[in-house]
Amino acid sequence: MKIIETLSGLKSELLDSQSPLGLVPTMGFLHEGHMALIRRARADNATVAVSIFVNPAQFGPKEDLSSYPRDMVGDLAKLENAHVDVVFVPSTEEVYPEDFDTHVEPGEMAERLEGASRPGHLQSVATVVCKLLSMVRPDRVYFGQKDAQQVLVVKRVNADLNLGAEVVVVPTVRAPDGIAISSRNIYLKPAEREAATVLHRALLLAAKLDSNDVLETKLCLRKLIEGEELAAVDYISVADPETLKEMEVIDRPALLSIAVWIGKARLIDNVLLKPR
Amino acid sequence: MKIIETLSGLKSELLDSQSPLGLVPTMGFLHEGHMALIRRARADNATVAVSIFVNPAQFGPKEDLSSYPRDMVGDLAKLENAHVDVVFVPSTEEVYPEDFDTHVEPGEMAERLEGASRPGHLQSVATVVCKLLSMVRPDRVYFGQKDAQQVLVVKRVNADLNLGAEVVVVPTVRAPDGIAISSRNIYLKPAEREAATVLHRALLLAAKLDSNDVLETKLCLRKLIEGEELAAVDYISVADPETLKEMEVIDRPALLSIAVWIGKARLIDNVLLKPR
Repeated sequence: MKIIETLSGLKSELLDSQSPLGLVPTMGFLHEGHMALIRRARADNATVAVSIFVNPAQFGPKEDLSSYPRDMVGDLAKLENAHVDVVFVPSTEEVYPEDFDTHVEPGEMAERLEGASRPGHLQSVATVVCKLLSMVRPDRVYFGQKDAQQVLVVKRVNADLNLGAEVVVVPTVRAPDGIAISSRNIYLKPAEREAATVLHRALLLAAKLDSNDVLETKLCLRKLIEGEELAAVDYISVADPETLKEMEVIDRPALLSIAVWIGKARLIDNVLLKPR
Repeated sequence: MKIIETLSGLKSELLDSQSPLGLVPTMGFLHEGHMALIRRARADNATVAVSIFVNPAQFGPKEDLSSYPRDMVGDLAKLENAHVDVVFVPSTEEVYPEDFDTHVEPGEMAERLEGASRPGHLQSVATVVCKLLSMVRPDRVYFGQKDAQQVLVVKRVNADLNLGAEVVVVPTVRAPDGIAISSRNIYLKPAEREAATVLHRALLLAAKLDSNDVLETKLCLRKLIEGEELAAVDYISVADPETLKEMEVIDRPALLSIAVWIGKARLIDNVLLKPR
């Protein structure tokens, strides 16, 4: 496994790599969700590259950049065990030199949901993904369904800027208690962890309700989530799975996305609802 | 010479092409300025690709998209004579499918000069250049110094988004009367053509003045240009050649850029001034 810190090193390493090449972009602190992406990439490709880069640009000024969990030694051991070929761990200066001044604007869809709650976040994701795809030029790039809107933004940018990767989406990995695995779960104290199961319970409730009435569905979910003392709803959205435009009637497949504060952790989850 | 209209055709054609690959992006109606770029690309590279695409996005609503000159038959003959390997002539739909919704924002420098006079123009240039570089993945890409700010934007975007091309800048080609060769010169009636020489005369005057006083230089140039009845100044700028921030004293190399209306043609030209 080659560990590479510079763009020039990356370029020369990938020049002779076998095709196809799969890329798994991460912010490190690797968990089972990342490992599912990596296993899929390993199965699909002759060469697997994983990037570890905590992108400062995609954190808001009041967000958790400084406390975002890191574990480089543990990460590298996991990647070695997963037979990854290339690990790219650039410095912030390598990715954003001092005179950096270009941004990728992913359009209207990125202003909804996470875009509304975290201004600039998805623009920064779009920019860094464009950069990583241009640096690595993979045949395939892997993202988790947990970040459903991120997946849509990446697909949009990849297609619109002709970045040439196939975007492979891997199902959300859940802990036995149903919680979608996320680096930010580490912020949860035991009681909060218990409360955080409400996200998954809300998704299950929506599927069980099997209503085509979006308002009714949202009200039931809000009631369930607000029944948890430690939980506060950020948003509950039922939207078109491609455009993320809010729907009023579930007369076709709909993406149910929720964002919930549990203590200082802001957690998101989603499920595809089928029409009744 | 292969003429290719689709992205998939381009991809398969370039897969087996010899390195290095040089790209000359154009809007067609090829003139001596373009041919200088192509000759340089031919000298530098094993494979030369030329794109012809009149990018609707980079024309403002009141600009000359519909009347922009076109001559596909003449262009192809010139490219064949110049031993170009691949001509890429995509349709608008191929470049901008209906659901296209991503833009490249080139930062502060793009808001000055042409950015101020033609809102959105340089964003659209940045976006289409990002797309073309991602489609073609050339080792080198060629632009003319006549569009000095465009060159800076392309360099910025290419570096910031890691597009991996070397941006080669070729000196402005001038007609015997000094006018920088441009597709838009075709709009000039004979008397206007005579008047249009004032752009080049202004650049020569600035060099001859050899003043370090920007205000004085600008006043002299404005007086000269406004002495031409058919000419109207859009801007006269003396700015840092990298950031395009306006300078007050020419105490280091400075980019003198001018934009002048001659009839319905808006012409631009520039020269690098050296400090006295």
